Order: sequence, then structure tokens, then C-alpha cells
Amino acid sequence: MCSLEEVIKEIQPVDQSICVAARDKWDKIAKPLRSLGKLEEMVIQLAGATGKLNPEVKKKAVLIFCADNGVVEEGVTQTGSEVTALVTENFTKGIATVNSFATVAGARTIPIDIGVNRDLSKVKGLEHKKVAWGTQNIAQGPAMTGEQCQQAIMVGVEMVRKYKEEGYQLFVTGEMGIGNTSTSSAILSVLTGVPVAKVTGKGAGLSQDGVKHKIAVLEQAVAVNQPDKTDIWDVMTKLGGFDICGMAGAFLGGALYHVPVFIDGFISAIAALCAVRLAPACKDYMFASHCSAEPAGQLTLQTLGLEACIHGELCLGEGTGGLLGAKLLDFALAAYQEVAEFEQLDIKPYELLD
Amino acid sequence: MCSLEEVIKEIQPVDQSICVAARDKWDKIAKPLRSLGKLEEMVIQLAGATGKLNPEVKKKAVLIFCADNGVVEEGVTQTGSEVTALVTENFTKGIATVNSFATVAGARTIPIDIGVNRDLSKVKGLEHKKVAWGTQNIAQGPAMTGEQCQQAIMVGVEMVRKYKEEGYQLFVTGEMGIGNTSTSSAILSVLTGVPVAKVTGKGAGLSQDGVKHKIAVLEQAVAVNQPDKTDIWDVMTKLGGFDICGMAGAFLGGALYHVPVFIDGFISAIAALCAVRLAPACKDYMFASHCSAEPAGQLTLQTLGLEACIHGELCLGEGTGGLLGAKLLDFALAAYQEVAEFEQLDIKPYELLD
Repeated sequence: MCSLEEVIKEIQPVDQSICVAARDKWDKIAKPLRSLGKLEEMVIQLAGATGKLNPEVKKKAVLIFCADNGVVEEGVTQTGSEVTALVTENFTKGIATVNSFATVAGARTIPIDIGVNRDLSKVKGLEHKKVAWGTQNIAQGPAMTGEQCQQAIMVGVEMVRKYKEEGYQLFVTGEMGIGNTSTSSAILSVLTGVPVAKVTGKGAGLSQDGVKHKIAVLEQAVAVNQPDKTDIWDVMTKLGGFDICGMAGAFLGGALYHVPVFIDGFISAIAALCAVRLAPACKDYMFASHCSAEPAGQLTLQTLGLEACIHGELCLGEGTGGLLGAKLLDFALAAYQEVAEFEQLDIKPYELLD
Repeated sequence: MCSLEEVIKEIQPVDQSICVAARDKWDKIAKPLRSLGKLEEMVIQLAGATGKLNPEVKKKAVLIFCADNGVVEEGVTQTGSEVTALVTENFTKGIATVNSFATVAGARTIPIDIGVNRDLSKVKGLEHKKVAWGTQNIAQGPAMTGEQCQQAIMVGVEMVRKYKEEGYQLFVTGEMGIGNTSTSSAILSVLTGVPVAKVTGKGAGLSQDGVKHKIAVLEQAVAVNQPDKTDIWDVMTKLGGFDICGMAGAFLGGALYHVPVFIDGFISAIAALCAVRLAPACKDYMFASHCSAEPAGQLTLQTLGLEACIHGELCLGEGTGGLLGAKLLDFALAAYQEVAEFEQLDIKPYELLD
């Protein structure tokens, strides 16, 4: 595989002529025009992303990037870092929420140790891609080195390459990492200029006082690191988690290898935003799924210029919401592939009127 | 089966103690508390509706009530009434959008001729329950007689009874009937007092001039019929379609037989509103799925006091959006049934903090 610099250079916008052809195909299908709304748009985008007018999605996988965040030592979370490793192991045992969701969605669960703060090298059913034993504490200095950031991003690219070669045609991004709403809020605040206090929520269950403390810690993280908002590398290196970098890499990989990659919730959307800053054209290959219950979920999607179909007040992570989105695509594709056209039925087509 | 009057008397609110127990069960499952948002609420409601702490949904069906509306002769639609019969037949052939959606959702498609304006008695795979060959033109007088209204509602109740006995554990309501956004908008305007012009949209594809004409026709329908907004019978009889009455009956049937019934889009939500006016307690047994792209979709759900998870700008009908909602319940139930509890994992449970 090529270097990250080469990956970014290789990424191209989709061929819009295939999107136009997919739009035409929808308009021939015997139903009121545009009546499947955003579901039609998803298929059109899929046609563009894959370069195929009749794309197929038979094998799906959820890539769960698991990593610890040094900032947890500041007391910004309800539970301790040890939960990251526990839940990561649960993914391999099939007993976490994402496992049950993946079964319903018809997807394979692929957990990745990209930076868990415990030795998981003996755990089976896990991709062993640890960059480091968690990041450094962003309230005291940068989260990682530039090399670590590049390495983590390339893990994401590599996962898409590897599993695409195994026949997977759609990926959902997911994460597990205590403290990762903190890193996400810090990044969003810097990239958008919206104050930390407005983009910080209770994560997995902080009290109101806990949220106040989390805001103070994140304000400190920004003040200490002074990230340059115009330099996405600087922002990711100073504030990011390995999970966010890995997911950003998965979005880049989707664009490079022409496979759709679904955004999950808040943290995953932050990774998508980072990926778009690295390579704007990769937006064509990423799909919104749901709008997180985290207060900054909607702002992140808006900043990306994306709209989610599902507003279920989910905030679990792991890729759970992304799997719901991927299932909606199954419905849309079934209609696109199977429903009769006006011509076959001898029905006069609907017209699009103003 | 008993009379409609007896059906309405029999309907009782759900036993809240089962909902409380289901809430407790969710809070023991190893994930951040409440992190599946509305999906958790769906399962809690299902537990209440079925009276079972561990409800199962293995067999699902979409009941599609097909009927014509006399008001179509006023030119309020882009296509003619003949399309109702054509699409109804397509349901039996498995080539309509709802068929492909039902396959993905794992549901059976059950089309019902409750009032199509053509002889479909020889069509196989159709429930033959025709009340009349379409309704009368509401712009000139009442849509139907009181007897027809009762008969149509009882078709819906009967469908739920029959298929519940065949083992179906969940129903989605759907409809097909050219002109049925007109009847729905008229009913909503009367029940809420919101002017017709604010609750009328383009249906399956009217032009802006077409919408203006549709509004004028519906204003005439209300003026001619003078329905009593405090008397739901009067409103349904004067303005309703047989499809709306049949779906209202399905909601009543769900409440009577303790099975969940999903609302689809705008027209189905109007039927749900009628059912709640007939028997307020039946609200406990009805589930929102998506918010229609019709302008009055959101108002109808608000009037019902319900929130939908899916905001996909769908406006196809047939039960398509309801099937998406039913699929979300599959995900929620899988998590509720399969995910490990904190205690089993020896993880300290999350706490619910203010």
C-alpha cells in the first residue's frame, strides 16, 4: 500500500454521470416520483461511490476502533479507562450491543485494538493494530506524535483495503474508548470556533457538575495545545484519539477503494469531518445514518453538510446507529432493484411538476 | 366477534407495571444508560402492549387497505382512480415497493380490497372486504353512510384478529387509494382547527396550481358537510375514506388483541388519530415509525403526541415507512434480549445522574 500522502492524493470525487443515471432509473420506477426521499438519495450516492449503476451490498462489516484516551485521568467520564478493554473483549465474545445489532443488519463485527491501554495481544477475534497504550492527556499536552497520527489513520485505510479484498462491500464505522466524547468535543470546538461549552455533553452519563468539569478540562486542553484550526494534522495530533484517527482513515479508505462507509454518531462524525479536511472529495463516499443525542451531534452533521435519516436519540457508539443506517440502505436498494417500472406495467409515469 | 361498540368498550390502557419492569431490565444491560434512546422506549411500549416482559416479534405483516375516493372526480390528484386498482393488483403480484420493503423487513404483505372502484373479486392473494365501489365525492356530500363507516372499521379489527390467530405478532398499517391525502387533510383540518390550506400538500405529485385547487375543493368539502369536530363518527363518515376507516379499525384491533400496530405516514397517522378519538387507550398499542414529507405529517404526529425515529422525507404510503419502523424494533429487541447484563460481566453499572 502507498503512503498516507499518496492515499490523499489519489482520492477523487465520484463520477456524477452515474448519479444522474441512477436518478433517471429511480424516476422510471412505478411509484410517485421522489417518494422515497432520502432513501433514493442514498442509492444515488452509492451508485456514485461504487461507480456502478446497479450496485450490490451483500457483505457488510462494522469496523470498531478501540482506544483509550489519556484525558480520562482528569475525571471527565463516569467510568474508568479499564472499561474500554472490557468492552473490546466483549465485542470478540459477541455479547455487546453492536454484536446484536450487527446480526440484525447482516453485518460482521470487526473490533480493532488501535490503542487500548491494556495488553490484548492474546485476545482472538481482534485486529491487533495497537499504535500505543492510549493517548497522552490532552489537558497537559499533545495527544500523540505526528507519526502516531499517521500510523493510526493508515490502520483505518488498511482495514478497508483488507476487508474489501475479502468481499465486503459496505463498512460502518464504530468506536469504543472511554473519554472519546471529550476528544471529539475539543476537536469540534477548534474546527468550528464554537465554544467548548456549547459542544460538550454528558457522554456516557456525567452529572451536570461532571459536564461543567469536563468543559473546564477541554478548555484547558485547547489553551495548553493551541491547535491551529487551519491545520487538520495539528488538530488531530494534539486533540485526537487513536479511534478518531482510525475512523478518519476508514473514510479515506472508502474513498480510495470506492466502497461506502457509514458514519455512526458524534465521535464517528468528528472522524468524518477530519477525513473531509484531509481530502474533501472523500465526502462523496461517506453516508450519514443517525443524529446522536449528544448536543453536538447535529452541529457536526451540519458542518459536514449531511443529513441523517434516523433521529432516535441514540448515543451508544460502537457503530450501532451506523448499522441502522446501513439497514435503511438495504430497503432502498431492494426497491431500486426489484420494483417494476412504469413501462413494464403500462402505467403512465408520474410527472415532476413545480 | 363482538360489535364495534363492544370493541371500543373492551379497550384498556396497558399495565404500566410491565413497562416499569422493562425499564428496569434495560437499565441492567451493559451499556450507557438510556443510550439507545427511542429504541428503548419502543421495547418498553411493546412490553406494555403485549403484556409480556420478554415479548417476541417473529411474524410480522403489513395490512394494506386499498380503496378509492369519490373526490378524485374533482381533479385533486395527478393520476386517475384507475391507478388504485392497478397498484392493488401489483401488491398481489409482489412487484410494488411495499413488497420489496416487506421482504427486507421479514414481513408478509396482505393487501385488502376495502373499497376499490373496480371488480377485483377474481384477484388472488387479496382480502376481499369491499364495503363499496369507492366513497362518494366529499365535495358534494358525505363520503359514506354510518353503516359503511362501521363496517369498514370492523374490517380492520377483523384483519388483526384473523392474522393474530395465524401467529402474526406485529402489524404495519398501509394504504393505497388515489385521493387519500385529500381526505386526510380534510379530516386533520376539522379535528385540529388548522386551516385546510396549512395541512394540504402535493400528495403524489401535484403542481403548485394543483395544490391550490385541491385546497379549494377541500374547503368546499368541509363547508358542504359541516362535520362536527367533537363527534369523530360524524367526521369520519363525512370526510373519511374506507382505507382510513380500515386502518383505524386495525389500531383498535391492536389494542383489543394486545398486538403492536405501526403507523406508516400521513394517511395512516390520520387513521391513528381517528382511532384514538374513538378509544383513547388504543394509543398505548400504536407505534410511530417515520415522519412523512407531506407538510401535515409532523402536525399529525404532534396531535397524537408521538415522535417518529425516521425522518427520511418519505411519502409513498403502502406501509413502506411503517416497515422501516418495524425493522428498528427488531434491532431494539435484539439488544434487549441478547446483550449481557452488568452483573454477568462483573462491571459496575452506570448510574443515572442529574
